[in-house]
Amino acid sequence: MKAFLDRDFLLDTPTAVRLYHDVAARCPIIDYHCHISPREIFEDLRYDNITQVWLGGDHYKWRLMRCAGVEEKYITGDASDHDKFLQWAQVLGKSIGNPLYHWSHLELRRFFGYEGILNRSTAEEVWQLCNARLQEAGMSVRGLIAQSHVETICTTDDPIDSLEWHQKLAADASFATAVLPAWRPDKAMNLEKPEFCDYLAKLSACSGVTVSDWDSLKAALNARMDFFAENHCRLSDHALNYVYYAPVSEEETNAILKKRLSGEAISPEEEATFKTSFMLYAAKQYHDRGWVMQLHYGCRRNNNPTAYAALGPDTGYDCIDNYAPAAQTAAFLGALEAADALPKTILYSLNPNDNQAIDSLCGCFQNSEAVSKVQHGSAWWFNDHLQGMTEQMVSLANLGYLAGFVGMLTDSRSFLSYPRHEYFRRILCRLIGQWVEEGQFPDDEDTLAEIVRGVSYENARRYFGFAQK
Amino acid sequence: MKAFLDRDFLLDTPTAVRLYHDVAARCPIIDYHCHISPREIFEDLRYDNITQVWLGGDHYKWRLMRCAGVEEKYITGDASDHDKFLQWAQVLGKSIGNPLYHWSHLELRRFFGYEGILNRSTAEEVWQLCNARLQEAGMSVRGLIAQSHVETICTTDDPIDSLEWHQKLAADASFATAVLPAWRPDKAMNLEKPEFCDYLAKLSACSGVTVSDWDSLKAALNARMDFFAENHCRLSDHALNYVYYAPVSEEETNAILKKRLSGEAISPEEEATFKTSFMLYAAKQYHDRGWVMQLHYGCRRNNNPTAYAALGPDTGYDCIDNYAPAAQTAAFLGALEAADALPKTILYSLNPNDNQAIDSLCGCFQNSEAVSKVQHGSAWWFNDHLQGMTEQMVSLANLGYLAGFVGMLTDSRSFLSYPRHEYFRRILCRLIGQWVEEGQFPDDEDTLAEIVRGVSYENARRYFGFAQK
Amino acid sequence: MKAFLDRDFLLDTPTAVRLYHDVAARCPIIDYHCHISPREIFEDLRYDNITQVWLGGDHYKWRLMRCAGVEEKYITGDASDHDKFLQWAQVLGKSIGNPLYHWSHLELRRFFGYEGILNRSTAEEVWQLCNARLQEAGMSVRGLIAQSHVETICTTDDPIDSLEWHQKLAADASFATAVLPAWRPDKAMNLEKPEFCDYLAKLSACSGVTVSDWDSLKAALNARMDFFAENHCRLSDHALNYVYYAPVSEEETNAILKKRLSGEAISPEEEATFKTSFMLYAAKQYHDRGWVMQLHYGCRRNNNPTAYAALGPDTGYDCIDNYAPAAQTAAFLGALEAADALPKTILYSLNPNDNQAIDSLCGCFQNSEAVSKVQHGSAWWFNDHLQGMTEQMVSLANLGYLAGFVGMLTDSRSFLSYPRHEYFRRILCRLIGQWVEEGQFPDDEDTLAEIVRGVSYENARRYFGFAQK
Repeated sequence: MKAFLDRDFLLDTPTAVRLYHDVAARCPIIDYHCHISPREIFEDLRYDNITQVWLGGDHYKWRLMRCAGVEEKYITGDASDHDKFLQWAQVLGKSIGNPLYHWSHLELRRFFGYEGILNRSTAEEVWQLCNARLQEAGMSVRGLIAQSHVETICTTDDPIDSLEWHQKLAADASFATAVLPAWRPDKAMNLEKPEFCDYLAKLSACSGVTVSDWDSLKAALNARMDFFAENHCRLSDHALNYVYYAPVSEEETNAILKKRLSGEAISPEEEATFKTSFMLYAAKQYHDRGWVMQLHYGCRRNNNPTAYAALGPDTGYDCIDNYAPAAQTAAFLGALEAADALPKTILYSLNPNDNQAIDSLCGCFQNSEAVSKVQHGSAWWFNDHLQGMTEQMVSLANLGYLAGFVGMLTDSRSFLSYPRHEYFRRILCRLIGQWVEEGQFPDDEDTLAEIVRGVSYENARRYFGFAQK
Repeated sequence: MKAFLDRDFLLDTPTAVRLYHDVAARCPIIDYHCHISPREIFEDLRYDNITQVWLGGDHYKWRLMRCAGVEEKYITGDASDHDKFLQWAQVLGKSIGNPLYHWSHLELRRFFGYEGILNRSTAEEVWQLCNARLQEAGMSVRGLIAQSHVETICTTDDPIDSLEWHQKLAADASFATAVLPAWRPDKAMNLEKPEFCDYLAKLSACSGVTVSDWDSLKAALNARMDFFAENHCRLSDHALNYVYYAPVSEEETNAILKKRLSGEAISPEEEATFKTSFMLYAAKQYHDRGWVMQLHYGCRRNNNPTAYAALGPDTGYDCIDNYAPAAQTAAFLGALEAADALPKTILYSLNPNDNQAIDSLCGCFQNSEAVSKVQHGSAWWFNDHLQGMTEQMVSLANLGYLAGFVGMLTDSRSFLSYPRHEYFRRILCRLIGQWVEEGQFPDDEDTLAEIVRGVSYENARRYFGFAQK
Repeated sequence: MKAFLDRDFLLDTPTAVRLYHDVAARCPIIDYHCHISPREIFEDLRYDNITQVWLGGDHYKWRLMRCAGVEEKYITGDASDHDKFLQWAQVLGKSIGNPLYHWSHLELRRFFGYEGILNRSTAEEVWQLCNARLQEAGMSVRGLIAQSHVETICTTDDPIDSLEWHQKLAADASFATAVLPAWRPDKAMNLEKPEFCDYLAKLSACSGVTVSDWDSLKAALNARMDFFAENHCRLSDHALNYVYYAPVSEEETNAILKKRLSGEAISPEEEATFKTSFMLYAAKQYHDRGWVMQLHYGCRRNNNPTAYAALGPDTGYDCIDNYAPAAQTAAFLGALEAADALPKTILYSLNPNDNQAIDSLCGCFQNSEAVSKVQHGSAWWFNDHLQGMTEQMVSLANLGYLAGFVGMLTDSRSFLSYPRHEYFRRILCRLIGQWVEEGQFPDDEDTLAEIVRGVSYENARRYFGFAQK
């Protein structure tokens, strides 16, 4: 029996052990998609206690506690941080098979030096230990990033963001990690939302272009993209229900937008056509600017109306949707290709059933502009675990070119989540080790190391075009 | 090489062996969903021969025989019981990878003491042995249940059922197993069926409420739910094509029902809206009564018109449907939550692709009313095998809280099917054993035993609120 | 560690080793569905170099090269064969986890006697070796087929094909392999295509029946089916977007066809109804003639408009579609059954998510006309790898009767692809070996050999009714 989470955690062959420790573990981290705050990095935030770090905003943990029947007061409510932690420890202690079990213990080992197990019996001891440790040097936000060997971070930013904190970080030679903005214009596209018109007013103010129709909306966004580009943005991100393809003319697009601006209601069909136009426009911009386009889809959000009223979005009430017609995704990419407007693209579906359809679709749009120009994104959110990551990589390998994969990102709101790169790399090496030791691929040290180094680090650097700071 | 179906069948690690024999195997059985006859229990039915028991009504076996090209006369036709058994033995002998191979041999070992293999060579010997054994004491229905250590059985009952046999069983102190009714009102909802109006006439007679509109339908059902509650009903069950959410007003619901009662045809849209109203009403009742709501969906029934004409429903001609929009399931549960009407709920889809969507959706509706209030039901019907059960539990563990799972049910029409609980428990212990011995979870005896005991037995008892008889 | 691709490649248990070498490897090959040219067989084509054989028309390899970022000139462009091969070798060398890695190395070992690894370092050596070997006796098309022990080949043929080369091959006693035509009438059904009317003109000329309406179309096709039957055709094949079921009357079918023939545009609904009628008609013909009906669906073709304009169809730009409603497939088969017109049928979906739905559906239409009359086809195209084949067989075994499976076909355009049968058989034996050695099925030599021989060879011979030449 292997000891729990030992040095060779998940590495079940000698080849995996060698590849992980000699190659993967030595690569810096490029975290090209996450949701952390550049301000908190610049200001080098510190934490009073482990509950703040772990339970302050992590909806993964909140969901698990709710699944275990914990009262909401111990989750997002007014119980003390201490009591919340005890509840969390009790739940975690029985969460066999859940990736939070691994993530949490990896974080305890890597950042806090705690080699034991967290459960109801040890909760008090861990509470004391972590809180004491948090007071030490190196446990501020910058310290956590530095000890994780993070070379590049891409945050997720609204077009109207001032990028003030990115600029300050760029100017701060004392901090070695590059913190780059990423362009996420969802609010400028989601015309079905009540806050859409207010948002356009802000965008007008910020861009200096008064948005009154489709042309001025594009002009305003272009201005902001110029600004993001000046601030070293290399990629965009979109949250879509699914990848729309219901094309209409520029005139019709303008008419729908004008209708919405006049306060009239928009039909679901109009929403889909407007969003199609928006995405075709945006993709062309990314193509021309050399940015990468990330499409995240297959999520149904805010499913619990009661909880939404109480807690708002991103609090643990989203689920996988199973409506994502491959035909529309294919037609959208095809239309871009026909217009010579297809940027480097990463497709992420929340529905793991889409793996094979995505990989086969990516293969239709590859060319020599980049190795694996259209990528199947790393297992996302609800799939971010041993099985999900393994299945994503097996599908990618079967149908495409695993050696060209840009690999892992945390997608996280926490500064403690870098061990998820370790988790991913262990799973990558595990998979490769199994193939090699089963005689499915030659035991060729150089080739294997090249593949592992590529997926762990180098592919992302080359694909996105990041420079070291 | 492990011997076929030995003591440690499916238990491929020492941890699995220990957990199964020391913990899981010692738990009584709660079979909270099945299709057996309470009358046959009360009357303590006996069987003349093994064909009656095995092939009398088991459409799983019929399907497999048809797949192997057996003539229908040896399946549901007029061949002798002896000849049917020989055909079955011949087919089973080559059915590698089919769960019937395991179930049948488990039944031969546990109930008949036959440790050999059933195939064309041994068919005659097994026929003799089983038939002799069936004449022995302890081989009546009550004997089979008693030797299987079944603590609680929930049957599946129509609202117009008299529950006469449940009452007689409740009054019979000589039989230790609790046999409880479960509420299955499909016939009161399926207004598209030709027999709908006749059914409502029966419901009127039985409830004392003349059903002439939506209000009186609800009143009649309420009266019957009161009666079921008096008879210790703790849960309901619905067979749905998919989980509908096409809400309309009470007035519109009433209009559709009146239209149907007047003999007019109902459109598919009207069917979906009526069923939405029906389910919203029913769920609220379950919530208020503390009953569990089971939703079984994703099945397309009676696909072979020729066979349906000859044999009727439930004869082996159903298949998995792949239309089950997660958005409607989510909206239905969300509407209930908003109305403070969401009962404890178990979702079962016949399509294994729905696993992750279901688990992520369950997580949106959990709270402290129960551990894992909204449950992902155990792998159902076509998924009730090593792979299907493993995948359901891995998905549940990845996305939710496996330790809160209410576990297995037979869904069976046979009194010999209790070894499926054994099968499930072995697979549970196998999975946990693999995780532990691979170092993915600590080897902590107490925690593991608590989880195994919970999923095998205690979670169901607590979740449904069953008392021991 | 097992050596790469050794004698026991993929055979990870002693049982698998024994079953493969003693049983599976000794069976002849029946390749009942492929896309090779009967003319090239008759004329006994030879190749100048390995690039012609491997990269001349293999869109699997083209896709992989594009995924790796290779310039198109080295794929389908005007680079030299030598340089193309070097590019391919470089890509292949890093294609861990891709089935092309296995297929290519199997071909190098079996046909070229090369036991090394192909990558950038060995490319030049392999280029020389293969090209020299191609000049040797036995390396012509007939030689490759003969050394692969291929007993029967079914090509894929248009109704207007003269079958000249099949006839010549049938008359050639010097060639032991039966080369039979298979009926693929897609062009006669796809009325939405621009070339439809031109095609009907050719069909008229070839059949002697002037096609001017639905009745004459059927008469023309009947005439050609008679001709195909005379030339030993035993099976048909259809490429469908999905299995349509939108039935209309013969009159309406005729009206749609006449509309199309008059040059008017056809709506998507009309297309679906016409195709439904076409398939109902065709299936009835197959049933009456004792032919097998193959349905390939779940593919979205020609997704890259730029590449399509440059290279045409079947050049590596197709993908998996995820729209294939099980309800329509079920209704289509049900309608055939009700009309006593359901032929032996093989269902292949390109979407691996359809596995369980297909297997459960097949089970609804089995009877004693054949063992597993309605079959779940072997893992197709993008699924033709270790994982895809394993999952297809596990699903089939769980839900049906693996022992009745007709097994593998190459679906290939290459004369080097027969090792894919070896690949499949190794995976079959691997799976069975794992079951047996884990104690999930008895170690009964005779039964196991019977199952393996059946799936490798005998089931196909019996199911299709092939005679040896």
